[in-house]
Amino acid sequence: MKQSELFTKTLKKAPKDEQGDSARLLIQAGFIDKLFAGVYSILPLGWRVTKKIENIIREEVNSIGGQEIFMPALHPLENYKKTGRDKMDILFRTELKNKMKLVLGQSHEEVITPLMKKYISSYKDLPKAVYQFQTKFRNELRAKSGIIRTREFLMKDLYSFHTDQKDLDEYYESARRAYFKIFERCGIGEKTYYTYASGGTFSKYSHEFQTITPAGEDLIYICQNCNLAINREIKNEIKKCPKCGNSNFEKKKVIEVGNIFKLGTKFSKSFNFQFTNKKGQKQDVFMGCYGIGLGRLMGAIVEIHHDKKGIIWPSPVAPFTVHILGFDKKAEKIYQTLKQNQIETLFDDREDKSAGEKFADADLIGIPIRIVVSKKTLEKNSVEIKNRDGKKMELVEINKLVKRLKK
Amino acid sequence: MKQSELFTKTLKKAPKDEQGDSARLLIQAGFIDKLFAGVYSILPLGWRVTKKIENIIREEVNSIGGQEIFMPALHPLENYKKTGRDKMDILFRTELKNKMKLVLGQSHEEVITPLMKKYISSYKDLPKAVYQFQTKFRNELRAKSGIIRTREFLMKDLYSFHTDQKDLDEYYESARRAYFKIFERCGIGEKTYYTYASGGTFSKYSHEFQTITPAGEDLIYICQNCNLAINREIKNEIKKCPKCGNSNFEKKKVIEVGNIFKLGTKFSKSFNFQFTNKKGQKQDVFMGCYGIGLGRLMGAIVEIHHDKKGIIWPSPVAPFTVHILGFDKKAEKIYQTLKQNQIETLFDDREDKSAGEKFADADLIGIPIRIVVSKKTLEKNSVEIKNRDGKKMELVEINKLVKRLKK
Repeated sequence: MKQSELFTKTLKKAPKDEQGDSARLLIQAGFIDKLFAGVYSILPLGWRVTKKIENIIREEVNSIGGQEIFMPALHPLENYKKTGRDKMDILFRTELKNKMKLVLGQSHEEVITPLMKKYISSYKDLPKAVYQFQTKFRNELRAKSGIIRTREFLMKDLYSFHTDQKDLDEYYESARRAYFKIFERCGIGEKTYYTYASGGTFSKYSHEFQTITPAGEDLIYICQNCNLAINREIKNEIKKCPKCGNSNFEKKKVIEVGNIFKLGTKFSKSFNFQFTNKKGQKQDVFMGCYGIGLGRLMGAIVEIHHDKKGIIWPSPVAPFTVHILGFDKKAEKIYQTLKQNQIETLFDDREDKSAGEKFADADLIGIPIRIVVSKKTLEKNSVEIKNRDGKKMELVEINKLVKRLKK
Repeated sequence: MKQSELFTKTLKKAPKDEQGDSARLLIQAGFIDKLFAGVYSILPLGWRVTKKIENIIREEVNSIGGQEIFMPALHPLENYKKTGRDKMDILFRTELKNKMKLVLGQSHEEVITPLMKKYISSYKDLPKAVYQFQTKFRNELRAKSGIIRTREFLMKDLYSFHTDQKDLDEYYESARRAYFKIFERCGIGEKTYYTYASGGTFSKYSHEFQTITPAGEDLIYICQNCNLAINREIKNEIKKCPKCGNSNFEKKKVIEVGNIFKLGTKFSKSFNFQFTNKKGQKQDVFMGCYGIGLGRLMGAIVEIHHDKKGIIWPSPVAPFTVHILGFDKKAEKIYQTLKQNQIETLFDDREDKSAGEKFADADLIGIPIRIVVSKKTLEKNSVEIKNRDGKKMELVEINKLVKRLKK
């Protein structure tokens, strides 16, 4: 894409009313825009990152048998009365003209459970796993930490359905592994810890994926022996590591990037969602749920991967692979060559910007590979390549460029 | 995908409480599920169709310079007061805990206009075109006609921004052409008419894309000379065809599958959205907006393409290209071969279904190419191919199958 055509522009100054480097940088670089506190538009560069994240999640969730659907945001309040969640503090409420009471989906247990009940009646229909990428609404009293805790956000929510606890446990373990693959591919694997947390009303414990960053809104205690972590909220209950028995922990500030719950039969019971087992008896279906907030994940990636100059995108989630800064008309031809070779390229073809502005914007936007095309590099039939996360500059001959970029 | 793994099942009987063959067939075949009147979940088969439609629209909108973004559903009521649309009848209303009044987006002029104002200041920044695929909410008194008029639906909404009326007119024309390409690729091009309609508060006329079907909720008058159409709502104003002057019209029932508006400077004025022209003077930005409802489009496709037995998907929007009905263990190998060759295949591997049930389900689901693998066909080292929209059955040798399907 040509940068002159992109409708967003980098802002000279970071916004002052945002918490967290991630929101500040993403707004300043033109990835997102705040409509009001806790509600953001995702702009072209941010949408490209979101789609990269979405595709990584989709591949990993498909690999554990997930079937993709799309459920509504308008939910009947009636369904929440059945589960006892109608008094939930964070529900946005609205109604139809005929006065039917609605809430905006903060999660989808109250929709997926009666939906699956229509299709699952026998043990032969189980297990199943169903997911969506869909907008969630949470009426937070205060929207905190920029894009980490928002009132409206895209979420991948996966639900699984099983004949018994053992089958749920096995699937839960496969989901845990898939989640680590997702976070590794998004470039935050090393900093992300599997964390015991409160189970809410569903079970004793749930599990969170917590990513260490000074901007963290949460606190975890990491076992210094086996790396399992425990959320602050239950640290008083758990004195020793549940996995290895060690009691030496290190405290760290973290952002929660994922959360998985064993729901057991709580929601099945509310909707009388049963199946017939091999003996012909009725039994409650066991359920699990597994969430990842996409905006929050993008925020966590930026918190981990930035410096004073701007964002440093990990390649798999970068909006583009290459950023060409053009200081000569021949840059256009190089841009076209990369395009033809399916190398995702942002081409800074702007003629009213100084070299300094172009370099600063490239650092702020944070595309992994920067290529400078100038009279000086062209004298040597070359371009200058520099990685955003490195210092080394390298001259590469134009006729070897595609090969170099594809290696 | 293996049909035994798909969580949805076809229903023995069509639902009785749905208007329109499209909703009835889509529910019976497991493409969608009704949560309550006017609000549907999109299930795996329906989501595959939706994604196909989305990709067709994306390609055509990108080809006219659209930049994809994603805006929120929660809108400040304040913004609607600025445009005078705060009294709109179909707005769902809610609020933050601090009592800030919100509405659910029924369209996004009140968000995109102040957003673009942040980035556009000069004639050099224009024209621009920005779009999204996003959920819209409309509090319809009665949700009519199954999935044609719903209370919550996915929409592609494109907005364009121009220095003057002429530039808007030219872009509007390119959008008109892109829309016809979209409807042609979705298999309803021949039945879809460009229609003059009321301009609302924006301009004298808007334009609709109306698709002829007996299930239509709307009425148009088609010029028998040039095929331009006029919506019933303005037929009293327009006695002669605005294009050719002819006054011989034919009346037809239709579904509206797209709608484009010249907004002019209405919304720019509300938000004081101006640019500096070449002479250094401030001027209002000219705007256009262009919508396509995805669920409605899926419904229109089904209304046009079905028979008594079920849906007949046009290939470009079909959930799968091939439906293998397996009556022998060797079907699995053929399924794997097609998968390896990137031919999208649903494989009916269910062992507890009779041949009759499998054939009936295949007709109901409506995948374009049906392949039967049975002892009888295997005796001739062949499979039997039949198109959903044809009667001819053809034996094709297994080693020639991929080539045959790819031609």
